[in-house]
Amino acid sequence: MKYNFGAGPCILPQEVFKQAAQAVLEFDHTGLSILEISHRTPEFEAVVAETERLVRTLLNVPEGYSVIFLQGGASLQFSMVPMNLLGDGKKAAYTDTGVWANKAIKEAKLFGEINVLASSKGANYTFIPKDYEIPKDAAYFHCTSNNTIYGTEMHQFPKSPIPVVCDMSSDIFSREVNVADFDLIYAGAQKNMGPAGVTLVIVKDEILGKIDRKIPSMLDYKIHIEGESMYFLFMYRC
Amino acid sequence: MKYNFGAGPCILPQEVFKQAAQAVLEFDHTGLSILEISHRTPEFEAVVAETERLVRTLLNVPEGYSVIFLQGGASLQFSMVPMNLLGDGKKAAYTDTGVWANKAIKEAKLFGEINVLASSKGANYTFIPKDYEIPKDAAYFHCTSNNTIYGTEMHQFPKSPIPVVCDMSSDIFSREVNVADFDLIYAGAQKNMGPAGVTLVIVKDEILGKIDRKIPSMLDYKIHIEGESMYFLFMYRC
Repeated sequence: MKYNFGAGPCILPQEVFKQAAQAVLEFDHTGLSILEISHRTPEFEAVVAETERLVRTLLNVPEGYSVIFLQGGASLQFSMVPMNLLGDGKKAAYTDTGVWANKAIKEAKLFGEINVLASSKGANYTFIPKDYEIPKDAAYFHCTSNNTIYGTEMHQFPKSPIPVVCDMSSDIFSREVNVADFDLIYAGAQKNMGPAGVTLVIVKDEILGKIDRKIPSMLDYKIHIEGESMYFLFMYRC
Repeated sequence: MKYNFGAGPCILPQEVFKQAAQAVLEFDHTGLSILEISHRTPEFEAVVAETERLVRTLLNVPEGYSVIFLQGGASLQFSMVPMNLLGDGKKAAYTDTGVWANKAIKEAKLFGEINVLASSKGANYTFIPKDYEIPKDAAYFHCTSNNTIYGTEMHQFPKSPIPVVCDMSSDIFSREVNVADFDLIYAGAQKNMGPAGVTLVIVKDEILGKIDRKIPSMLDYKIHIEGESMYFLFMYRC
C-alpha cells in the first residue's frame, strides 16, 4: 500500500477505482465497456445525471444555475470566462493571489482591459490582499479561492456589486460555500473531485448571452447548457 | 457477449479493456492507480511517449511534424485550426462534404473569410465533389477525408499550392496516407483509435506562428508542442 500525498491528481477511494475498473470491463450489466457505449444510452446518461445531482446536492446549488462538465481544465476556463463575459472594450477586475490567478489574468488580457485590484506577488503570494474595492463598472470580478502552492485561502469573499467568478479548483467540496454569492464557479476535477480530465462549471444562467462577441461553439457556455452538457460529449463521441 | 456496431464510440479489443481496468486498479507496479499518479512520473510519461511513437510509426510521420494529444474533440479543432492558421482579413478554402465539414466551415467563419470551393449539400452529400481549384491566395485548404453518415470517402487528395488541413476522424489508421501530403491532420480518438476524450493532431511545425492573432494558451498549437503535449496535461492535473 502506497500513500499519495500529491496535491493533484488527488488520492481517490479504493472503492472508486474498483467501480471504475469494473465499468471499463463491463458497465452496468450492458455487456459492454463504458468506454464503448454511446453517450445517448440510458446507462451513460444516468452517470452524467447522477454526477450533476451530486454536485447540486452537495453544494446546495440554487435554482437558476446550470451545472456543466467540460474539458480543458481550469486553464481553458481562464480564457472561456472572458470570452463569454467580457465584451469588447469592457474591463474586468481580478485579484492576483498566486501563480494560477496570475495565469488567469494573463489569459483574460487577450479579451479586454484587466484591472488587477490587488496583488501579493511582490510578497511571493504569502498573503491574500483584502484592501480593495470592486469597481461597479467592470464586467465581473474574478478571484481564486485557494492557492495550494502558498497555503493561502480566502476565508471570506468580498461583497461585490458585479458578478463574481471564482476558481475553486483546489478547495471545492472542502467546505461549505454559498453558491448564491457567486455567478460562476469553476474547478478542474483533479484536486478535490476525481481524476484529471473534466472541469466542473456552475454558472448563473442570467449572466450569459450579454455580450456581442461571436464565440466558438465548443467554448460557448450557452451551447453546452442547451445541450445539457452533452454538446461536448456528442461532439467528441459521435 | 454483445457486439457493438456503432460508428463511434468504437469497439475496442477486450485486451485493451483488461489493461485499462488493471491500470485503474494499479498501474505498472507503482502501487497506485493511473488515475492518481502525476503526469510527470516516468511511468505516465512512458504511456504518452509510447502513444506518440505508435502514431509516428503506424503513419510513418516525417521529420518536422509534431504529434500532440488534445481535448475537445475534432469540434474544437474546427475552431483551433482557423484560430492558429487564418490571419485577420485572410481567407481559407473549404470543401463541404458532410455535416461535420459543414460545422467546420461554420466555426471557421468566426475567424475570417471562408471560400467554400465545392459542396454536395444540395445532393444530401451523396458524393464528394472533385471539380474545384484550390486558390493560391488562401491561407489553407480544409477537407474531411471520410463522411460516415453518407458513406463517402476521399480516395485521392487534390494537389494543393497551399497548406492542406484534413479532418481524418473517421478513417484514420484504416488505410495508408502520405502524411507529407498534409500540413495538419486531426482526428478525435473515438472512431478509429480508442475511447472518446482525446484528439490527435499531427502538424507540420513550419506552418505555425505565421499570423499575428493572440491565441489563448490552451488553444495554441505551439504551446502544446513546446510542452511536448504536456501543457494540457500539466494544466489540468496540477
